[in-house]
Amino acid sequence: MDHLREKTISKEVLFEGKIIDLHIEEVELPNGHTSKRELIKHPGAVAVLAITDDRKLVMVQQYRKALEKVIVEIPAGKLEKGEAPEVTAKRELEEETGYGCETLMPLISFYTSPGFADELVHLFMAKGLKKIENPAGLDEDEFVDVLEVTLVEAVEFIKEKKIYDAKTAYAVQYLQLQQALGE
Amino acid sequence: MDHLREKTISKEVLFEGKIIDLHIEEVELPNGHTSKRELIKHPGAVAVLAITDDRKLVMVQQYRKALEKVIVEIPAGKLEKGEAPEVTAKRELEEETGYGCETLMPLISFYTSPGFADELVHLFMAKGLKKIENPAGLDEDEFVDVLEVTLVEAVEFIKEKKIYDAKTAYAVQYLQLQQALGE
Repeated sequence: MDHLREKTISKEVLFEGKIIDLHIEEVELPNGHTSKRELIKHPGAVAVLAITDDRKLVMVQQYRKALEKVIVEIPAGKLEKGEAPEVTAKRELEEETGYGCETLMPLISFYTSPGFADELVHLFMAKGLKKIENPAGLDEDEFVDVLEVTLVEAVEFIKEKKIYDAKTAYAVQYLQLQQALGE
Repeated sequence: MDHLREKTISKEVLFEGKIIDLHIEEVELPNGHTSKRELIKHPGAVAVLAITDDRKLVMVQQYRKALEKVIVEIPAGKLEKGEAPEVTAKRELEEETGYGCETLMPLISFYTSPGFADELVHLFMAKGLKKIENPAGLDEDEFVDVLEVTLVEAVEFIKEKKIYDAKTAYAVQYLQLQQALGE
């Protein structure tokens, strides 16, 4: 598939932030012409589809400044440098919801916006949830409400655009598929 | 849900590009403290789950500079200013695959990376595909190979990380769910 590849001619780092970096790369296209690519570098993230013993989905409601909206999502957070995704997943679940889990199963990993960003989200399913007595707290700039909803309610939230992001929509559809398959 | 809201104190536009802009916003948090948000502004995009009359999924294989990888995705592209998502969807399907469609049905819209970006993807399903005689061509910096795959092959592509992005993973799972429901 080398006939599709773009070669980097030059790279400029325009911004290095807490969460994202912005690079502008000049590339040589497959036809020999040149173009510029605007690229966001992100450390990657985890998301956790956490199911209680009574089959509720644990969700967090939070304000997303990028959207200027409050939306409902599955617990998620970015990878710390060198941290294994499983470790991040357990940490974020505890910090955002106060739950620990007995089992954590990887479901899928996907890039969220391959056109401009390298953010890779690792999605897990957590079961055997137990409230932790003194859970680790949220980051100092994080504020969330925890909700526990049925699958039917979650599907309704998608219709109402309360659930409105790709990872959470994928996770809810995953459970619908499991249910349809009788699993 | 005003107890979760973050108020903008100041905004700095660090970059305005062809595809994305980068804003840094200083915000007042719900507890009165301040923080900075790194935000990517994006015009939004469409993606098209296009199904041929013999039940193949039309996919495009392309190099994604952000990932430094060739991956397989459903046809997609960004919204032009003021363009209705349905119009963009038909245009991108034609440009990337040479297909027109008789029906185009909205499936879902979702934000891809609500933690830092406002990119909203509108996902459609296209059926009644017909090859267009002289289709509109690709943008001058776009190079893609068109593939037609069965649902079984698409599921295998996900396992092999050839399909590796959220919108395409969602679309494939959507078809699995339809099939499991006997629809």
